[in-house]
Amino acid sequence: MSGAARTPRIERVLPCVGWLRRYDGGLFRSDALAAVIVTIMLIPQSLAYALLAGLPPQVGLYASALPLVGYALFGSSNALAVGPVAVVSLMTAVAVGQFAAVGTPEYLGAALVLALLSGVMLIALGLLRLGFLASLLSHPVISGFITASGILIAASQLKHIFGIEASGHSLIELSGSLIEHIGEVNLPTLVIGALATVFLFWVRAQLKPLLKRIGFGERLADSFAKAGPVAAVIVTILAVEFLALDAAGVKVVGTIPQGLPPIAMPPFDPDLWQALLPSALLISVVGFVESVSVAQTLAAKRRERIQPDRELVGLGAANVASAFSGGYPVTGGFARSVVNFDAGARTPLAGVLTAGGIALTALLLTPLFQHLPKATLAATILVAVLSLVDLGAIKRTWVYSKKDFAAMMATILTVWTVGVEAGIIAGVSLSVVLFLARSARPHFARLGQVPGTHHFRNVKRHEVITSPEVLSLRIDESLYFANARWLEDKIYDMAIEDPKLRHVVLNCAAVNEIDASALESLEALIERLEAAGVSLHLAEVKGPVTDKLKRSDSFCSHAGRIYLSHYDALAALDPETTDQADKGARPERSTAAMHLSRKAEGA
Amino acid sequence: MSGAARTPRIERVLPCVGWLRRYDGGLFRSDALAAVIVTIMLIPQSLAYALLAGLPPQVGLYASALPLVGYALFGSSNALAVGPVAVVSLMTAVAVGQFAAVGTPEYLGAALVLALLSGVMLIALGLLRLGFLASLLSHPVISGFITASGILIAASQLKHIFGIEASGHSLIELSGSLIEHIGEVNLPTLVIGALATVFLFWVRAQLKPLLKRIGFGERLADSFAKAGPVAAVIVTILAVEFLALDAAGVKVVGTIPQGLPPIAMPPFDPDLWQALLPSALLISVVGFVESVSVAQTLAAKRRERIQPDRELVGLGAANVASAFSGGYPVTGGFARSVVNFDAGARTPLAGVLTAGGIALTALLLTPLFQHLPKATLAATILVAVLSLVDLGAIKRTWVYSKKDFAAMMATILTVWTVGVEAGIIAGVSLSVVLFLARSARPHFARLGQVPGTHHFRNVKRHEVITSPEVLSLRIDESLYFANARWLEDKIYDMAIEDPKLRHVVLNCAAVNEIDASALESLEALIERLEAAGVSLHLAEVKGPVTDKLKRSDSFCSHAGRIYLSHYDALAALDPETTDQADKGARPERSTAAMHLSRKAEGA
Repeated sequence: MSGAARTPRIERVLPCVGWLRRYDGGLFRSDALAAVIVTIMLIPQSLAYALLAGLPPQVGLYASALPLVGYALFGSSNALAVGPVAVVSLMTAVAVGQFAAVGTPEYLGAALVLALLSGVMLIALGLLRLGFLASLLSHPVISGFITASGILIAASQLKHIFGIEASGHSLIELSGSLIEHIGEVNLPTLVIGALATVFLFWVRAQLKPLLKRIGFGERLADSFAKAGPVAAVIVTILAVEFLALDAAGVKVVGTIPQGLPPIAMPPFDPDLWQALLPSALLISVVGFVESVSVAQTLAAKRRERIQPDRELVGLGAANVASAFSGGYPVTGGFARSVVNFDAGARTPLAGVLTAGGIALTALLLTPLFQHLPKATLAATILVAVLSLVDLGAIKRTWVYSKKDFAAMMATILTVWTVGVEAGIIAGVSLSVVLFLARSARPHFARLGQVPGTHHFRNVKRHEVITSPEVLSLRIDESLYFANARWLEDKIYDMAIEDPKLRHVVLNCAAVNEIDASALESLEALIERLEAAGVSLHLAEVKGPVTDKLKRSDSFCSHAGRIYLSHYDALAALDPETTDQADKGARPERSTAAMHLSRKAEGA
Repeated sequence: MSGAARTPRIERVLPCVGWLRRYDGGLFRSDALAAVIVTIMLIPQSLAYALLAGLPPQVGLYASALPLVGYALFGSSNALAVGPVAVVSLMTAVAVGQFAAVGTPEYLGAALVLALLSGVMLIALGLLRLGFLASLLSHPVISGFITASGILIAASQLKHIFGIEASGHSLIELSGSLIEHIGEVNLPTLVIGALATVFLFWVRAQLKPLLKRIGFGERLADSFAKAGPVAAVIVTILAVEFLALDAAGVKVVGTIPQGLPPIAMPPFDPDLWQALLPSALLISVVGFVESVSVAQTLAAKRRERIQPDRELVGLGAANVASAFSGGYPVTGGFARSVVNFDAGARTPLAGVLTAGGIALTALLLTPLFQHLPKATLAATILVAVLSLVDLGAIKRTWVYSKKDFAAMMATILTVWTVGVEAGIIAGVSLSVVLFLARSARPHFARLGQVPGTHHFRNVKRHEVITSPEVLSLRIDESLYFANARWLEDKIYDMAIEDPKLRHVVLNCAAVNEIDASALESLEALIERLEAAGVSLHLAEVKGPVTDKLKRSDSFCSHAGRIYLSHYDALAALDPETTDQADKGARPERSTAAMHLSRKAEGA
């Protein structure tokens, strides 16, 4: 709050004004170096992710140019590298695939609409400060989702590596289709795909230590290792050109139109827009959660801060820019941002420079990629996404919490059997229901007075004096719709069990809210208890809750009293027992015996 | 719990064994009288609600026979009268109308499937003790839903009263269609419909007091008043017969097949079953919530109890019975159950006797209804549903809670503009999101030591001593996915604001759970704070939470310590300040001043 107050207003709207004002040559040299390295890494990735999204390769380049400028203007992270990423590309393919066939202008148009809708949604969420909605995606759900999608994406790339046709949105459909077509494997494609995959895995795992052993410095070794995909791209292009492998059935990227990203208008078709809304929402939320956790991790390393609401606007601007420059939905990528950070990016200008590099590539270098085998791109994707798979997280979650594990597995299995969108929905729904289920059956304790004090404690844990006529209860949860009726029944049952009972005192010290459903249940409970000759009182009700209860006429006219402290209630309702307890009398034999027997039950 | 233990096992499975064992002639006379009155009330209602559901009239009778026996065997309420009800009939029409045209065998088949699915779901929810899912329908949502549906149903009946064609599932479509066709009004139909409506409103409001004034007893007057619809039915049938009004364009019910409810098999079509699942779930939950609140209200009047899980099984059995005897989804009706109760029903046998009465009607009396005008049935529905409309509840909710009001209005407006199913979903989603939103931004307080004691209290509300090196915080909510990241940021920001700070102590006395997302956030917070030279400690962590935290290796290796009490933590981390506070030193001028200035801000 106070930090925001110190920031000039213009910087709150356009964070770039802040860092541009302090910009200098040293920052530029850092940013420019990072931009070169990220551009080299981004070229094969953007082509590959476009392939994964079912879009022409140049769309990947377009999505890596203007969107980065959009983010640089409005985003708050200095290191986040925005562009096409694996999971969002898969989600785009699934969403758009429902309304158009791959390769048609309608498919491309729907991808633009998806980018526009998710951009507008992200901006709206940011301006309305609704970033909290993203927190409904719990860590286990998002981690399970990424792992499951990673494996699904890897499986979807096998067809390119084997050079066969296969399709399907779920792992089951996909593997069925792969097995069916496995006889049609194209040997030259498989050789290229397999060699590229093995090479890229080797680069990732072995090259950096090797380079360091033979005398390279840490940073140079790292940069070489990151350029592995570029080497694979160059070598396989040369192999296709010199061995004429495309004639032997190796599928290549083909002619990519040369030129800067076009100014595009997403088609205006209200039915399509409405139909794409749910997918756009899911893509926005998943992209935001992914991106913000990367940005936060990197910001923390330099003791900087990112502002989630500004991130929403920044990513929104990136997606709107993508929609109007021939791209598709984008977000902050994990590996790419880490490279950007390690290479020394100090301000979002690094992103702008990267965008320039990609724009130059689109303008000048696309003819070079004509003979690039799709199998090489598939190998790039395969190696990248398998690094997202985190099976250790599944085990850690199992050990820590069975409930979180259930939500995680629901996500993973639904992604594999039904699809990515259903997976997210299943995971979020189950985590919300499991959370509500806990607060729907809240812990509550029967209280008694600690002898010689005015304190009231759980009869199961302390030696206390209880009144024969007054039942004292404490509920450790707000009273709201999910637990209202259950508590109504529970309290009623406890109250009518003992015919000597005249009063129930509900201790509300832990009750932060009583909603309209709980109010109705309290009123119903008061009536039911009244019919049984028992009256209900409240004690230690918090100020805001009391204010609210006073607004209900029927509650005020029927309820017993609201006592300031539990002791006041008992002193008024059963002065005799309270007197004894005040004098420090030990609990009666019967109470103590009950207390012990309950302990024996392990209660 | 203990109540259930005392009940013999057979009665827990078949509650009817219990009351049949204690059955006698006195109970039978009570039950039989109630059955006669309910049967007379149920005949026109069952014909009318079948019309509302778009089904042939006899289906209403079938749904009022065997289902009552199913409920009597397994249900736990002595007064609940099961059968077709308005809201569920409308929901059936909407659900089934998506897959088949009114009047086709497929339409009837789909209604049977819907009854079967919702019956099986209710039984499953009961056996799995998942009744709590129904509590996700908060009081304001269900009340808004009933009011909105009541008005929607009333509007849908106007076409029968005007004798015109009109269609539409939302209020907007419906009123558009009504206005379009208003020129085609059939005068004799309008006269019958209008007179029947006025008569029924008069009976409801005026007849009972009138009869009492002229000397009738309370109960007899009541019974006559409830027979109003029967009188309207008889008079309008005679009018049609003697004036040959059907030739003048008055639509009549027509020939109703004579005979006992048939043994029917719901068609087995996996695609249809799957497509109807969501509707069946909504119908089950809405029906259950409606029914259980009626049953509970009536049981409380005689100090009896109903068991929600048994109710689920009872209603489930009723729906399964309906599916196999040519009926459609049923539930406990409000008005009908009150009549049953007032007429003296003492056991579920009253329902079995009513079922017998309806079966006899289906066998012998259906020819009498051939000339019954649809306008009369529409008038019956109109008058019945307008009594469900509770505009006062909208105002009461507005006064009591704006959040509940928002959920209620979302339900009402969505029912009117989109439809009944969307309305329920909108209301439930909004109430859940608003609830999560509150716990996503929980209350938290900065603590200080009350001089001369070991107590720590909110610095904004008490004169306390705070340590310059240790930040003490208390969070009044469980830590879970919806608030984890927000709290991580909040605590980090507060901790790095003051460069003198060395430690943060988090008081967890109000934390009932730390889920996997919150654990990851805590771990991230520990790392981020460590980088800033600040260490995080926990105090007063509840036993089960500590046990869980111990399962996480990375948490245990990085966190500071978990202290038993907040005082222990401060005494270890800043013994100097603690010493001063122990000696009862007053807060320093600066602290006190801060304290006062905060008070002035109204914090």
